[in-house]
Amino acid sequence: MDEVYLFDEAAKLHMGKAELGGKGYGLVEMTRIGLPVPEGIIITTKMCNKFFSEKKLWQSIIQKIKAKMKALESKTGKEFGNPKNPLLVSVRSGAPLSMPGMMDTVLNLGINDTIAEAIASRLGSKFAFDTYRRFIQLFGSIVLKIDKEKFEAILEKSKASKGIKNDSDLSGDDLRHIVSEYKMLVRRETGKELEQDPEKQLFMAIQAVFESWWNKRASEYRRIYNIPDSLGTAVSIVRMVYGNYNANSGTGVAFTRDPSTGERTLYAEVLLNAQGEDVVAGIRTPMHIDRLKQLMPKVYSELERSAKILEKYFKDMQDIEFTIEDGKFYLLQTRNGKRTPAAAVKIAISMLHERLITEQEALLRVEPEQLEKLFYKQVDQSKKPNPIAKGLPASPGAASGRVTFSIEGAVEAKAKGIPVIMVRPETTPEDITGIAASTGVLTSRGGMTSHAAVVTRGMGKPCIVGAEAVKISPDGKSFSVGSIKVNEGDIITIDGGDGSIYVGEVPLVDPKQTPEISALLKLADKHRKLGIRANADTLEMFTKALENGAEGIGLARTERMFNSPDRLELVRKMILAKSKDERQLYLSKIKPMQKSDFKALLGAAKGKPVTIRLLDAPLHEFLPKVEELLPEVIKLRQKGPKALLKEKEELLASVMQLREANPMMGQRGVRLALMYPEIYEMQVSAMLEAAIDLVEQGVKVDLEIMVSQVAIANELMQARQIIENTAENVFKSKRRRINFKIGTMIETPRATLVAADLAKYADFFSFGTNDLTQGTFAFSRDDAEAKFMPFYMSSKVLEADPFVTLDAAESRLVDLCTKEGKAAKKTLKVGVCGEHGGDPKSIGIFNSLGIDYVSMSPYRVPVARLAAAQASVTGAKSNTI
Amino acid sequence: MDEVYLFDEAAKLHMGKAELGGKGYGLVEMTRIGLPVPEGIIITTKMCNKFFSEKKLWQSIIQKIKAKMKALESKTGKEFGNPKNPLLVSVRSGAPLSMPGMMDTVLNLGINDTIAEAIASRLGSKFAFDTYRRFIQLFGSIVLKIDKEKFEAILEKSKASKGIKNDSDLSGDDLRHIVSEYKMLVRRETGKELEQDPEKQLFMAIQAVFESWWNKRASEYRRIYNIPDSLGTAVSIVRMVYGNYNANSGTGVAFTRDPSTGERTLYAEVLLNAQGEDVVAGIRTPMHIDRLKQLMPKVYSELERSAKILEKYFKDMQDIEFTIEDGKFYLLQTRNGKRTPAAAVKIAISMLHERLITEQEALLRVEPEQLEKLFYKQVDQSKKPNPIAKGLPASPGAASGRVTFSIEGAVEAKAKGIPVIMVRPETTPEDITGIAASTGVLTSRGGMTSHAAVVTRGMGKPCIVGAEAVKISPDGKSFSVGSIKVNEGDIITIDGGDGSIYVGEVPLVDPKQTPEISALLKLADKHRKLGIRANADTLEMFTKALENGAEGIGLARTERMFNSPDRLELVRKMILAKSKDERQLYLSKIKPMQKSDFKALLGAAKGKPVTIRLLDAPLHEFLPKVEELLPEVIKLRQKGPKALLKEKEELLASVMQLREANPMMGQRGVRLALMYPEIYEMQVSAMLEAAIDLVEQGVKVDLEIMVSQVAIANELMQARQIIENTAENVFKSKRRRINFKIGTMIETPRATLVAADLAKYADFFSFGTNDLTQGTFAFSRDDAEAKFMPFYMSSKVLEADPFVTLDAAESRLVDLCTKEGKAAKKTLKVGVCGEHGGDPKSIGIFNSLGIDYVSMSPYRVPVARLAAAQASVTGAKSNTI
Repeated sequence: MDEVYLFDEAAKLHMGKAELGGKGYGLVEMTRIGLPVPEGIIITTKMCNKFFSEKKLWQSIIQKIKAKMKALESKTGKEFGNPKNPLLVSVRSGAPLSMPGMMDTVLNLGINDTIAEAIASRLGSKFAFDTYRRFIQLFGSIVLKIDKEKFEAILEKSKASKGIKNDSDLSGDDLRHIVSEYKMLVRRETGKELEQDPEKQLFMAIQAVFESWWNKRASEYRRIYNIPDSLGTAVSIVRMVYGNYNANSGTGVAFTRDPSTGERTLYAEVLLNAQGEDVVAGIRTPMHIDRLKQLMPKVYSELERSAKILEKYFKDMQDIEFTIEDGKFYLLQTRNGKRTPAAAVKIAISMLHERLITEQEALLRVEPEQLEKLFYKQVDQSKKPNPIAKGLPASPGAASGRVTFSIEGAVEAKAKGIPVIMVRPETTPEDITGIAASTGVLTSRGGMTSHAAVVTRGMGKPCIVGAEAVKISPDGKSFSVGSIKVNEGDIITIDGGDGSIYVGEVPLVDPKQTPEISALLKLADKHRKLGIRANADTLEMFTKALENGAEGIGLARTERMFNSPDRLELVRKMILAKSKDERQLYLSKIKPMQKSDFKALLGAAKGKPVTIRLLDAPLHEFLPKVEELLPEVIKLRQKGPKALLKEKEELLASVMQLREANPMMGQRGVRLALMYPEIYEMQVSAMLEAAIDLVEQGVKVDLEIMVSQVAIANELMQARQIIENTAENVFKSKRRRINFKIGTMIETPRATLVAADLAKYADFFSFGTNDLTQGTFAFSRDDAEAKFMPFYMSSKVLEADPFVTLDAAESRLVDLCTKEGKAAKKTLKVGVCGEHGGDPKSIGIFNSLGIDYVSMSPYRVPVARLAAAQASVTGAKSNTI
Repeated sequence: MDEVYLFDEAAKLHMGKAELGGKGYGLVEMTRIGLPVPEGIIITTKMCNKFFSEKKLWQSIIQKIKAKMKALESKTGKEFGNPKNPLLVSVRSGAPLSMPGMMDTVLNLGINDTIAEAIASRLGSKFAFDTYRRFIQLFGSIVLKIDKEKFEAILEKSKASKGIKNDSDLSGDDLRHIVSEYKMLVRRETGKELEQDPEKQLFMAIQAVFESWWNKRASEYRRIYNIPDSLGTAVSIVRMVYGNYNANSGTGVAFTRDPSTGERTLYAEVLLNAQGEDVVAGIRTPMHIDRLKQLMPKVYSELERSAKILEKYFKDMQDIEFTIEDGKFYLLQTRNGKRTPAAAVKIAISMLHERLITEQEALLRVEPEQLEKLFYKQVDQSKKPNPIAKGLPASPGAASGRVTFSIEGAVEAKAKGIPVIMVRPETTPEDITGIAASTGVLTSRGGMTSHAAVVTRGMGKPCIVGAEAVKISPDGKSFSVGSIKVNEGDIITIDGGDGSIYVGEVPLVDPKQTPEISALLKLADKHRKLGIRANADTLEMFTKALENGAEGIGLARTERMFNSPDRLELVRKMILAKSKDERQLYLSKIKPMQKSDFKALLGAAKGKPVTIRLLDAPLHEFLPKVEELLPEVIKLRQKGPKALLKEKEELLASVMQLREANPMMGQRGVRLALMYPEIYEMQVSAMLEAAIDLVEQGVKVDLEIMVSQVAIANELMQARQIIENTAENVFKSKRRRINFKIGTMIETPRATLVAADLAKYADFFSFGTNDLTQGTFAFSRDDAEAKFMPFYMSSKVLEADPFVTLDAAESRLVDLCTKEGKAAKKTLKVGVCGEHGGDPKSIGIFNSLGIDYVSMSPYRVPVARLAAAQASVTGAKSNTI
């Protein structure tokens, strides 16, 4: 059957966006609920697919469309092609999902020379030829594929010759002249006269809509966003109403609530005597809504009434297009409106209170990534500052500071209390001190998962990466963007939320913890099933995490605690120790420091679970690099104190010996600990002694000790023995026992394959998805980012960065491991503590795989709370299907 | 029911080794077929397990044993404990599998002071007290756990005081004195008198056998070899026959065929007037079999007749223990005999020809690893040379040569035609030139899968690794083993088949390609299902592979072809090229070389499949190392030609830039090729041009082009596009098309998870199990070998080296990938080209997973042919269960 319907016919069939497309659906639904929509016809998406198999419009549909046009004529009392009472229409595409690159709207279709003249004689040539020139411009560019700029050029030339600024100031004669030039352009470009037969115009436009489905841009868009090619587009044909009819006419857009704040107040912009895209195009400054209320109180109250009805019907803030024809109000489009993060939260909570939507719906109304921005400073966009460049928004928040290019610079400035932005080509793990001392970080290379990005996100500091326009000078004393030069010490401002870089100090807005945000997060906690913990190595981070609603620590990295210079020195001596005794001597000096670290975290947790990971990093990470040490040694060999030379030569030998070809897969974590059990022994005693001290002070403690890098069940068995033996010794000497858990990271591919064996020795599993991704892909994260990942993303080898969003193939391993682990041990708790634990999409996957909790940067906790709730809501939905 | 049987009763029940243990089974079966075995009783393994649950011998079994002892008395006409006609017995353990550490045999049990005196009065005190002292010695050490050495000391002292060398020369009085000293020893050590009650002796001995199941050594052995603890041991109680009865008595061992050559000739050693282990212990030099034939023709013919019957019955060469008591022949044990590799092959093929065994059985009679040794030179052990040290036998074969410690030394010697053995602490990839120039390699560090081991196996060169006794002097001019010093230039001999190191030139024996070896391999080819290819990068390797029976090349590594200095220079320039044009210039110079490489391989293959892998190695592998370049640059900065400094500084910058944190997981293989497609383009044109040249000369070509490091289906899709586009260009310019296949290595864990997607773009898969193991475990192979793998093996974290034998968890991935790949594409061929392709155990796994072919070092091809046949034979067997 050929599916061509009048809007009121379609309304009775209760079709959705899949059949009617987004625009058509809005029009049909508004017709259904009796709102003032011009009459029209809809051709469904199914016909689009039939068109592709037929390769042209087939006879029966042509007849059907003609018949429906007749019906439209009788409904409107106008006739298509009749100069005396012409029916003009707009022809619009409308895919089920909004899709850039699809054909746009052709207005005023059905007009021709004769009809234009007839309208002119009745209503004046200004209206007639403005309508006609708009038709030619749209039909010419969209259907006949003539470069849009060529029409614009004619229009501009004409305005210039008359010294006119606004299109609406052109006279009837001017417009008549423009029309004739437009027609000449059409003839020149297509070799044919402009089509005069309204029916032919109509079928050409319909065909153009269908064909635009395969536009390069639309096809590419579908490929990227995984939109099936089979969806197709609908076509709507709508009776024209004329915003350019006279001064009592106009066109406008409105939001049913303030899209910027979410306030429940109508927000609209209107342009009188204008048509179509004039408002959006910003040709003239539109009129404020209050002025409309004064000028056209009836129209205003119709708009207000419509807005209320639409919100009630669609249960969301609506973005409306309307037209006023000689004082009469028409609705031309409605859709859910885009909004700022703050507005999204406000609207969701308000609509929940207004009982427009359910709790579940409210939760789904805010994108988790939107929510995150509300927790950071941003550049005050109301001041319209001009960025000099843009990079990738790697870590949200905005900050101003003096530019520095070196770690030392950052550290010195910090000591003086001067905020600095560290600017580097890229960052490496050694830059951590510099990053810690900076207020923000800017790099010219690297992607969203590069070192700088990951570290700053963990610290909640603004960071922009991959700002390719930023060229650092060879002497490292300045950078330039085009002709702008920024010297060391100059002030810049960066906004890691949108990647903008500004020269000078730009006003910032503080994050505001509104009651709506709290309400939304409380709602999220009510609905989510996943537990939310934080990755926190310091009391500062953990305090932030608790503020943000974390339910404990999912990962405390003990090696991060070794970073301060005094500790690093001891760690270095421990590594270089020539005997177990010597090593134990240095370990015993490190132990009180570790104990106090652990005590701080466990004390702040007040009984919430705290997972502490035993030493994971390879030892050579704590030693200097060969390429730094070697020149020193060479210099000392030529002249220098013998004792120092000997010391440095020994150090060099140790560094060379500890060096590994592929340290990521080298001797770290459990692979180091089994050979040097004294390291775990020190850490475990420190933890348990801290815990017992707290328990004796009446503080509740829930300690979970975690082993890393496990690939083999025997590794975990032996590590567990070390931990349990150490615990027994501590309990004996402290004369007190406490309960604690022992678990393992799941971060090697093999670990996911032997879950049942590992479960024998583990009270909990925690997926370390950073390393697991590395191992699964065999992509070294640092090298991938520096070498081929940017290319892989740009050339679509990968559709998403697997270090950000859990890869589907990798999730097979997570699934297998979780299932087999829980089957082997019912009480096994399974969490995630890699970067993916804070990624909303990945959280959805973890929720569906039956993971118990996720753990992430303290700053991502609110995002994760919301994402987990959404996963739970949509998961529950999909379960009921 | 208590399972205690007389041998002839047990024979009727048709029990196997599981119930009777190995020794018991031999005795019962020999009884069944009417061979002269002394009468005896067997207690089954089931009773051993019952003993463990009862924790003692229970009443009913004690009664049953007593009853059976009565029956034994009536059968033998002797009485247990009756001094006039005493029944003495041996008590022996016997587990279903041979197991070191289990209790040994107690002989002459049932003797005591009274009985000894009674025997003495009848048969003389020499026989009586020799028998008694043997009993006390065995019972004392095995049952009473008194240190064996203490008995030996008494014996030695007594012999010394008499100036006697052989035990058999002790007089009756001597022996009587020894017995009294033995009894004093027992009293001193246990605080009790030696048990005089024969029945108590018996139950003590039975209990000791059972308890020995949990000996530390036996438990450990079971754990290592995965022998279930539940098997248990049987006990046999056998009437004593006395090889020490008189000069017409004796004890001996025999092999039914020559265990050294496999010749079908009886091989035996006999010791007159001796008992038990005297032959094996080598106390006196035994008598040759020809002498036995002369001295005791009747005994000899009985032995000969028994040997024939036993071989026919057990269908294998037997290792027999026998005793002659006063001219009467008794069999005490029979089991399948150990043999040399040559004998194993000879016996298998002879027995097949004699129709003793089937083809399948013949195939299972030779260990694949045994077979390999027959393809290499060995040290002539008949000359009994003395090794100065032993290392791990990393690559079989033996060689003599002058010691060198440097690559340059090896290269210079090679140029002069002097064979050298390169001695190094360990080897790294840069040492390849040195290894190639050497006749053999010896390292003091490293394991069976270390770099030196892998490379030399591939080249078929002798190699010993991990010879820890070898200490290289700090100046690198000599090495020492204990007090022996070996200087550079001295000759040594190494045997990589057993790991022995000799000073000087030691006689070697050449491998002999006997007709039996050919017959066995032909038989293997008939029965195996797996295809066998070789990993060969050069014509030389491929020729060896074809000689050894390879059916094609499974892996030709193109980067190995870049190793010669002239090529390396071009490759280096190509890498350092500043533009694509410059890069292509150098590629075009490399191309003719590659084409001639490919032509040689494809030409030699004569239509057999040849899989060529496109460039896989990371680029920086072709560049010098930072720690070598940096000192050069520093020197040049101080004084040196400016131009050279500039060149070296640029090189250093490039090296630093190309350096990766974890190159194994960095930009290599397809990850490099997609960004620099010109490399693949050059290689693919070279291959196809070579192929077309050959086809035009009438040579058949079956070319398979392989992409490496694939983790994502889109990588393979894009690589395939590059290859296909290049092929079209070649076909067009050559005006000829040929067929070829495109496939992918499966070597990243992720690839195994997306087999169905990969199959869309692959004609074949080839598992690269080296990298797959690396990724699955997240163990960098080089680092693991250097740092923790030795510890993991010695501390039993791992039971087998996963780089040698396919790991069970990893095989889940291989299985999944093979199944899903073949399900997605029926015609998909799946092979293995990692080290595991040549490992017999892994071959068994691959066979069971439905892999189509395995590929390995040319030198491993015969091993693989046999292993594949065995897998097919045992696989078929297990399928019929």
